[in-house]
Amino acid sequence: MPRGPTDRTKIRRHPERASYDRKTVDAILDEALLCHVAFAVDGHPSVIPTIHVRVGDELYIHGSQASRTLRALNSGMEVCIEVTLLDGIVLARSTPKHSMNYRSVVLYGSAHPITDPTEKHEAQLALVEHILPGRAASVRPPNAAEMKETLILAIPLDEASAKIRSGPPLDPEADLTVPTWAGVLPLALTLGDPQPDARQSPDIPPPDYAHRYRRSPSV
Amino acid sequence: MPRGPTDRTKIRRHPERASYDRKTVDAILDEALLCHVAFAVDGHPSVIPTIHVRVGDELYIHGSQASRTLRALNSGMEVCIEVTLLDGIVLARSTPKHSMNYRSVVLYGSAHPITDPTEKHEAQLALVEHILPGRAASVRPPNAAEMKETLILAIPLDEASAKIRSGPPLDPEADLTVPTWAGVLPLALTLGDPQPDARQSPDIPPPDYAHRYRRSPSV
Repeated sequence: MPRGPTDRTKIRRHPERASYDRKTVDAILDEALLCHVAFAVDGHPSVIPTIHVRVGDELYIHGSQASRTLRALNSGMEVCIEVTLLDGIVLARSTPKHSMNYRSVVLYGSAHPITDPTEKHEAQLALVEHILPGRAASVRPPNAAEMKETLILAIPLDEASAKIRSGPPLDPEADLTVPTWAGVLPLALTLGDPQPDARQSPDIPPPDYAHRYRRSPSV
Repeated sequence: MPRGPTDRTKIRRHPERASYDRKTVDAILDEALLCHVAFAVDGHPSVIPTIHVRVGDELYIHGSQASRTLRALNSGMEVCIEVTLLDGIVLARSTPKHSMNYRSVVLYGSAHPITDPTEKHEAQLALVEHILPGRAASVRPPNAAEMKETLILAIPLDEASAKIRSGPPLDPEADLTVPTWAGVLPLALTLGDPQPDARQSPDIPPPDYAHRYRRSPSV
């Protein structure tokens, strides 16, 4: 069911770029390798990068039980999480009309820990699967000690908004005579050649899922 | 002069990945296309993505004078800005040892507006030059109305730290027998074919600086 924005998710600048549709939000979260987690301790803001995975209606992040940041977030304080995918550099005919094509999500909420052992175990695998689908099955799963030292936090996707810019530069008519090339330089996160760990037998080839890795959407 | 960390920039998790050296911080800020600006209004955290440029000892961000966020930041409130470059996916032999190679910067401070007309004009050009060196000279510069509706904020680079992970997975000896490929899948932000704006003469070729565009460092 499409929902409207809440007061804090409502996008006021360029509202034509806004979406509050969960399908749109989920697609951006699922593609991104990284999220940016902001919180405030005694009014002092901080933001850290971390990996994430969406599982159903929640976003999971993880970290060490010893992390001050994770422990702070685990106290249920408010959090704001942002994810941005860069799709292109928009070259306009004037400096102010230059822009970026992007897809971003901003999520407000508070975190609760995943404590059920099965759920927590699956969350660990999901974090790896999010980065590289097919990977978790071929490696050693977390043991009891590793499970214990890891904190997994979940933030419900109840208050999320997406913002998307796509398409060409929006130059006013008067600028069309500026004698310069205008358009979009598409950007994508691409994979280089796999670099094998020196400590492995050279007869193990890189896995298929590495060769056919593609982060960008298929559209 | 290399400086030590302050209490809020000091990196406690994986301190071996930390650097407080301005050269390291600057290189990351200069390469990144995007930063993440966190702030707290009445204790409620928010984080937004935006473009930036480093000019000397300050980081500039910009936006509309009408933006609630920019206006809030312009009041001198505390801000935390984070930049992260993803360099690779680290495939280990167990799920918990999976990691990312990255270079990130976290900057704490508060913003002040650039009000001097010459400085502000140059800042507008610098923001475009940061994204695409060589571009500003070939387009129309901002006019008086555009200058007026833009707010440019500067944050001093006094309290910045960098955190870098590079290299192979750090599997314990006991995991080396896991029969899977381990290593690094390098990531880079790469450019696709330029997409010309439909409203221009087809005899204008994409500029040289688009063809030889490379965001990653030359190392």
